[in-house]
Amino acid sequence: MKVSKYLDTKPIQELPGVVKREVITANDGAPHFCMRVFDVEPGGSTPFHSHWWEHEVFVLSGRGVVVSEQGETQIAKDSVIFVAPNEQHCFVNNGSELLRFICVIPLVTPDQP
Amino acid sequence: MKVSKYLDTKPIQELPGVVKREVITANDGAPHFCMRVFDVEPGGSTPFHSHWWEHEVFVLSGRGVVVSEQGETQIAKDSVIFVAPNEQHCFVNNGSELLRFICVIPLVTPDQP
Repeated sequence: MKVSKYLDTKPIQELPGVVKREVITANDGAPHFCMRVFDVEPGGSTPFHSHWWEHEVFVLSGRGVVVSEQGETQIAKDSVIFVAPNEQHCFVNNGSELLRFICVIPLVTPDQP
Repeated sequence: MKVSKYLDTKPIQELPGVVKREVITANDGAPHFCMRVFDVEPGGSTPFHSHWWEHEVFVLSGRGVVVSEQGETQIAKDSVIFVAPNEQHCFVNNGSELLRFICVIPLVTPDQP
């Protein structure tokens, strides 16, 4: 068992305005998926892209929009977002505070289902 | 893409004092893991047990302890807990407010890794 405070995990500057903390990873023994916490600064955004892996997201604080090919949806504290595999998406902070969210992704690969 | 507020998900009375919301499941198209949110009332507890699947947990609010065969560890808002496969564990609310946490589990089975 590993018990920690997520702010004790070393922050990684993923992109300008986007910080990532990998709070549970394969290094902890996680066999199937890993948990990360992202901080997006006001005005910041993750890239609009797609990939084979899904996202399961829970918003901890702040507000913003999640963008898909269908348009924008408002998100805020307590929002839950499922981004399906190969779905275009990005997370934009259009608020005045940090947009902070948990994002869980699989550790398996398409060739190792 | 699915966007919701987790409190909009129907609560399930998992045990006396323990409510579960399955906020992202296979029904949403999730291929590898599902996200649930638990509310444990003051004085309540999940059972002390083990199983083949791991838990990746993030505490949203409240305080309590996570119990393993090695003893108890304090948890509170912003705690992250990784429970390894087959590890004995339970979550106890020894505080005065709801203990609320996200718990992610795999959808795969040991026979379908």
